[in-house]
Amino acid sequence: MTEKFLTAEILATGDEIRTGALIDSNSAYIARKLEEAGLAVVRHTCVGDNLDQLIMVIREIGARAHLAVVTGGLGPTGDDLSAAAAARAADLPLEINAEAMTSIDDFFNARNRSVSEANRKPACLPKGADCLPNPVGTAPGFSLKVGQCRFFFLPGVPFEMRRLLDDYVLPYVGELQGDGRRYRLVKTLTTFGLPESVVGEHLKGLEAELPGIRVGLRAKFPEIHVKLYANGGELEDLHRLLARGQSWVKGKLGDKVISTDSRSLQSVVGGLLRKQKATLALAESCTGGLIANWVTDVPGSSDYFLFGAVTYANETKTRFAGVDPAVIDKYGAVHEEVVKQMAAGVRDAAQATYGLATSGIAGPEGASPGKPVGTVCIGCATPQDVRGCRFHFSYGNRDMNKKIFAMKALDILRRELMR
Amino acid sequence: MTEKFLTAEILATGDEIRTGALIDSNSAYIARKLEEAGLAVVRHTCVGDNLDQLIMVIREIGARAHLAVVTGGLGPTGDDLSAAAAARAADLPLEINAEAMTSIDDFFNARNRSVSEANRKPACLPKGADCLPNPVGTAPGFSLKVGQCRFFFLPGVPFEMRRLLDDYVLPYVGELQGDGRRYRLVKTLTTFGLPESVVGEHLKGLEAELPGIRVGLRAKFPEIHVKLYANGGELEDLHRLLARGQSWVKGKLGDKVISTDSRSLQSVVGGLLRKQKATLALAESCTGGLIANWVTDVPGSSDYFLFGAVTYANETKTRFAGVDPAVIDKYGAVHEEVVKQMAAGVRDAAQATYGLATSGIAGPEGASPGKPVGTVCIGCATPQDVRGCRFHFSYGNRDMNKKIFAMKALDILRRELMR
Repeated sequence: MTEKFLTAEILATGDEIRTGALIDSNSAYIARKLEEAGLAVVRHTCVGDNLDQLIMVIREIGARAHLAVVTGGLGPTGDDLSAAAAARAADLPLEINAEAMTSIDDFFNARNRSVSEANRKPACLPKGADCLPNPVGTAPGFSLKVGQCRFFFLPGVPFEMRRLLDDYVLPYVGELQGDGRRYRLVKTLTTFGLPESVVGEHLKGLEAELPGIRVGLRAKFPEIHVKLYANGGELEDLHRLLARGQSWVKGKLGDKVISTDSRSLQSVVGGLLRKQKATLALAESCTGGLIANWVTDVPGSSDYFLFGAVTYANETKTRFAGVDPAVIDKYGAVHEEVVKQMAAGVRDAAQATYGLATSGIAGPEGASPGKPVGTVCIGCATPQDVRGCRFHFSYGNRDMNKKIFAMKALDILRRELMR
Repeated sequence: MTEKFLTAEILATGDEIRTGALIDSNSAYIARKLEEAGLAVVRHTCVGDNLDQLIMVIREIGARAHLAVVTGGLGPTGDDLSAAAAARAADLPLEINAEAMTSIDDFFNARNRSVSEANRKPACLPKGADCLPNPVGTAPGFSLKVGQCRFFFLPGVPFEMRRLLDDYVLPYVGELQGDGRRYRLVKTLTTFGLPESVVGEHLKGLEAELPGIRVGLRAKFPEIHVKLYANGGELEDLHRLLARGQSWVKGKLGDKVISTDSRSLQSVVGGLLRKQKATLALAESCTGGLIANWVTDVPGSSDYFLFGAVTYANETKTRFAGVDPAVIDKYGAVHEEVVKQMAAGVRDAAQATYGLATSGIAGPEGASPGKPVGTVCIGCATPQDVRGCRFHFSYGNRDMNKKIFAMKALDILRRELMR
């Protein structure tokens, strides 16, 4: 074979996926595993429970790829057409496979269940196919060459698919590659605070300066993830190259980089609080508990998170976060002075080291002259001082506004903790 | 055309999806919408950011389908290859599209942001392509015929994709079908409180009693969605049939049905509070602000939601929710008596009509003898009385525990409000 990488394709079958009733998560899992094992996954396809479509697509893949993984269609019902389609695509007859019959009998016997005629249908496989016994489900998989391509037909149930992928497909990939094994590594840097296009501008030149690294950007609102990809035969070299790439990116993006190990902002902030033996209290208005929810998503957050007040009504800003009602009367609830009082008030009331506060307009209602939807004031109280600032975001969507407000607030606290 | 249904295909592009770093949820969404609109979705495909692969697959689809929706690859970076690939597949040159330039300028101007050279790259489209202006993102989509097939190229960001699908693709599908139009309707009933297998048992017999309806179940943790599907040429008949199906399901599942219009539990609870001119205050421990966050996701929730206290530290349960410290000393923080005091305390402190409280062990730490991870106590204070109850869930996962605890608490309030 002259290609640098052996190529793989993935085929998901079933009307549930074809019609969108079910999101196909199997294909992403298989792609990740095959890429990690050094194959180049070139294409994913999905077709429904339709014999003609299945035969056509199996033949197409058989003419293109070196290895293919197919999920679904192995069960006992009339909709389960994988064996029939594979047989037709390879011009082979179907016949009872003795090993498949044993796999099915073993599964039912081990559970003291009797085997019906329907349960035995999955034992009918293309002549000459290799059975892939399934210890965790009723239908075994099978493997068969069609055209130039080795196909693995696996169950659609995720945990059964994963078991058979581990037991049969990945060991086969290892054998296939022998000494010529290659690796594909990826390093992810999570950034916050710059739009995708600006991050892209900053990273121009990286690929030229560090040959062998390919850069990809991924927007995962409100974060932008920088992905550095590297391929090669020597694992150590790749790790060294990616470490240099990581330093290069951090040199350009500085503290816009939240983490280099896929940790979330709330996990990074939690780590900083824990390291400083500091504690946190929150007073949230427009973010409505989202910050508290994120902070408490981190296991062990009770070590540093003491209290959160969701002060939605103005009187509760006074009662629970110590805001002077005259200040709200004078400036309105969305103002730097209000969030400063909220941050200091909740810090003191909860006897915490830091206080963080939000007040803003997530929309769609609530705008006023000079304070459009998307306006947020953020207050941050440290042991030394209290600061308030104001931002405006133009997403025009309540959910996105809540998220960006909450991220911005946590990021302000992160920068404070890193001083 | 001789087919009963016009055929559609879906193409997802991008290395993130090809390599499995990202699960493709766009394709399922698009498939559902196109099927509902009466098209037969025949195949989904995914390829990476590779010009040759993109050209090849666009040509293949152009030879097979009547309509295709492509997602991703419209942005300003070098990875964004959709316009270049479409132009090559259709043998057309690329040129600056004036309408696309206007769409980009409008987006940035409306947000007081300046337009860089990179931002303008998405205005370079195949000659003669129709621009699909994008009011919610930086890159517009475009539409173009390749072979026999009308292609719609949409952004990969889900909310942008959905907006352009609604604005341009679905109206086009309506025109395309004219008088021969067939409809595929689906009705979704959202349920909470029964496992999927038990819901399935209850619904046995529906398809036999109401011919023409097909039943599907979909687990969207922690909800189970019951989907009723019906196809045909007469819209009125289909609506009537599905209304009968809905009554049938409600007859079997009773108040386990939260909504029949895809409304969330927090939206249903908010509607009930608004109708009764009642207000709500929350005291959350183990749910960490998740209930407040859900409640405030509903636009206009400030009309009935007054205050939420996230009382993570025990002293804050006393200080902000009026719990007697002696009760915590006697029973521990996870106890019916504690959540009763929290619910009544926060209700009174915020002068609300209802108070709802949680205290439990989301894990992985925090278990004690007799109180394993997954234990939650929920308190509900009404104008008349206060009740506390205890549940145990065995998901063994912090995120899932927080979600099921929060859903259970809101569902207790919903039942209280429906009395």
